[in-house]
Amino acid sequence: MSTIHEVETSWKEGFEFDSIIDGHHLTIDSSVISGGNDKGPRPKALILSSLGACTGMDIVSLLQKMRVDFSDFALNVKADLRDEHPKIYTRIYLEYKIRVKKEDEEKMLKAVELSKDKYCGVSAMLSMVCPIDFKITFLD
Amino acid sequence: MSTIHEVETSWKEGFEFDSIIDGHHLTIDSSVISGGNDKGPRPKALILSSLGACTGMDIVSLLQKMRVDFSDFALNVKADLRDEHPKIYTRIYLEYKIRVKKEDEEKMLKAVELSKDKYCGVSAMLSMVCPIDFKITFLD
Repeated sequence: MSTIHEVETSWKEGFEFDSIIDGHHLTIDSSVISGGNDKGPRPKALILSSLGACTGMDIVSLLQKMRVDFSDFALNVKADLRDEHPKIYTRIYLEYKIRVKKEDEEKMLKAVELSKDKYCGVSAMLSMVCPIDFKITFLD
Repeated sequence: MSTIHEVETSWKEGFEFDSIIDGHHLTIDSSVISGGNDKGPRPKALILSSLGACTGMDIVSLLQKMRVDFSDFALNVKADLRDEHPKIYTRIYLEYKIRVKKEDEEKMLKAVELSKDKYCGVSAMLSMVCPIDFKITFLD
């Protein structure tokens, strides 16, 4: 069984595109230095955004199920982009930053494990492309 | 040599995240049926948007270099999502729709080949995940 996802992306002018995803419009554009007008993000880094939000949603859902209170939750995703064509990511660094009670830190570790190994489709896909380094930073 | 890409994604409330990509804010949210508020697209389909815009920019750039006039350029990207965890794409269908003069159709085929085989980093990465079917539709 499978579900179908569909996205329509239309050229506007220059390097500007309008992408319709789940009914929402997203402007994607090239940087000024590359000949675009910077009206929106570049295409490639959207993948990193996708990764952050996908595993982020897993964590929110899992911590809620584990009845863990949290705040100041953010994800930083960095990636090394090869300079040769085709320019692909060769390593991804994913950092979870979160504030939880000291006694709940173990549950956060467990949630990250579950997202990484079981639930997060984006991290499963990107791990076929390059290694992903996982890091958790507990805020004081 | 490599370049570093970085994206910061912050949790707002529920399943809503704000992602900062190249200085642009993008709201990502879960669907209402999944417990979110649909304030923005879901994380996974962003990958399909990324693919459409990445190869789309290649085509714009290549057709300009080949001095080919074009209009009504759009990209449709569909993907089969596996229902089992982790939910990954198992096949991607990428359709280029474009209006060019009859005598320029060969150049459009060449541009798509070059994007697919040489320039498009996103299609190079996703082809490590699953097969990608390419199709070109010339509009009358």
